[in-house]
Amino acid sequence: TIVRRVVDTLLPLRDYTGVHVLVTAGPTREPLDPVRFLSNRSSGKMGYAIAERAQRRGAKVTLISGPTSLAVPPGVNVVWVETSHEMLAACQSHFQMCDLFIAAAAVSDYTPAQRAPHKLKKSERDGDIVLTLRPTPDILATLARQKGPHQVVVGFAAETENLLEHARHKLEAKQLDLIVANDVTQEGAGFEKDTNVVTLLWPDGRQEPLPLLPKSAVADRLLTAVRPLLKARPLEPDAGT
Amino acid sequence: TIVRRVVDTLLPLRDYTGVHVLVTAGPTREPLDPVRFLSNRSSGKMGYAIAERAQRRGAKVTLISGPTSLAVPPGVNVVWVETSHEMLAACQSHFQMCDLFIAAAAVSDYTPAQRAPHKLKKSERDGDIVLTLRPTPDILATLARQKGPHQVVVGFAAETENLLEHARHKLEAKQLDLIVANDVTQEGAGFEKDTNVVTLLWPDGRQEPLPLLPKSAVADRLLTAVRPLLKARPLEPDAGT
Repeated sequence: TIVRRVVDTLLPLRDYTGVHVLVTAGPTREPLDPVRFLSNRSSGKMGYAIAERAQRRGAKVTLISGPTSLAVPPGVNVVWVETSHEMLAACQSHFQMCDLFIAAAAVSDYTPAQRAPHKLKKSERDGDIVLTLRPTPDILATLARQKGPHQVVVGFAAETENLLEHARHKLEAKQLDLIVANDVTQEGAGFEKDTNVVTLLWPDGRQEPLPLLPKSAVADRLLTAVRPLLKARPLEPDAGT
Repeated sequence: TIVRRVVDTLLPLRDYTGVHVLVTAGPTREPLDPVRFLSNRSSGKMGYAIAERAQRRGAKVTLISGPTSLAVPPGVNVVWVETSHEMLAACQSHFQMCDLFIAAAAVSDYTPAQRAPHKLKKSERDGDIVLTLRPTPDILATLARQKGPHQVVVGFAAETENLLEHARHKLEAKQLDLIVANDVTQEGAGFEKDTNVVTLLWPDGRQEPLPLLPKSAVADRLLTAVRPLLKARPLEPDAGT
């Protein structure tokens, strides 16, 4: 109806009211010693944008964040972590309560096998040193395996080559409900940027490439794509408002 | 005289007028691949505070900065770098022009021996990987060796044990004019904090421990301690203003 369309246009979308969204964001840091660490270029902007948009659309949002320099979106409950092990523990303790888990963090997949209690000294200028790196637990796969029938799990695949192939493999191997494929080498996409270029992939083979958009708009398109998957919740856009 | 004391109190100190100060700040990042890097906990706050205070005291300041989330102090010329090799190159190209070089950056002393052109894939979940790390050039020692008779070179020693011993060794081995010893494990000191606890060490054996102070006050105490070493420049506090 016309009235409905006018209402939809004028009122902010509250289609996530009553939905508990758990989002991870940012990098993790894997310490070699008290001073040095292994990390990655994630700024946290994509995950923070998802948290902010979900909260605006009515969700109760818990954001599990690695170290970033971003402001926490108003109304979002944040849990700070540093290492991949801390991020896994925080996810484990919040996962049962959530309806939707979106893993936007760039979790280190390797961590130093040993952590020195004191800053490593460079004794000689010329010698190489050898660092053994151990795989970290796969947070996304671990939580996806624990998924209840009412829960939806969404992953990100940040890749620098063979984007869609790697992303579809990850979607299937981890039994996700949706994956966001993100070619981080593309102009205007990926880490530290305010815009992104992604493709959404579903398990049934469907895929939807999105144009270059601000990360807040990518977050909104993602939340709109995910909303019908939340079957246990009312689908009406104004439900619960 | 009384007039002089009143003037000193009321007017901002401009004792670095005509002095060109080169400061390094922040961490460096040493890439393993397009996404991952090795870095450290330096926030850049100490180096930025030195740049800001030196500029306020009349110096022409060039700040060579690794990745930080800090605002550049007004009036300071900033050169952005990422790796230790880029920081060395930037220092080399600015060193000849400076009267005072203060190396406050936490330069990575190791870098991955190989850099993968694409994001490393974790093919198997269980296998450790071995990373070879190679020593980086020692920027402070390199520049100190190139020091002209009018130039003063100041280093930092961020340590987690045997602080003064390590610092004095570095002061002598690199032939610095002054070193700032910084126990980064101490409460209220070191990386990511707004305060610091340091000891200044001179080559003649003198040392001066400073109390817990805001980093801007540490910067001022350091600049005051260094000023008499700049022998080629007039020592009067109001010279050149």
